[in-house]
Amino acid sequence: MAAKAEDLLRQQYLVPRRSVKKLKEMSRKEGVSAGELARRAIEAYTAGRVLSESEDEAAACALLA
Amino acid sequence: MAAKAEDLLRQQYLVPRRSVKKLKEMSRKEGVSAGELARRAIEAYTAGRVLSESEDEAAACALLA
Repeated sequence: MAAKAEDLLRQQYLVPRRSVKKLKEMSRKEGVSAGELARRAIEAYTAGRVLSESEDEAAACALLA
Repeated sequence: MAAKAEDLLRQQYLVPRRSVKKLKEMSRKEGVSAGELARRAIEAYTAGRVLSESEDEAAACALLA
């Protein structure tokens, strides 16, 4: 993680039960805490590195290529 | 949001200050709460709809195409 400890803010979010469960599974598999995975998720999302559910993925890829 | 209210769990995460700031900006622009955006981020991440920072995006797109 690049951010220094003092740059982290404690945030509360309401998260779907299935996502919490999935984060725990990924945490076990990857040996990374669920909190770290949530942080990566939010960082990727705010950096625009996320494919939306509805979006035409081929079109998104054309823009990236 | 598809999930029912009773399927949401209150979770605490440590989030980089710059991501919290970015979520607030996106929230203002899109007229969606920062909490909803964080939820979308985590849902997208756990569904594998995220491009990692290091990953070759062209290669990822080739797989999607």
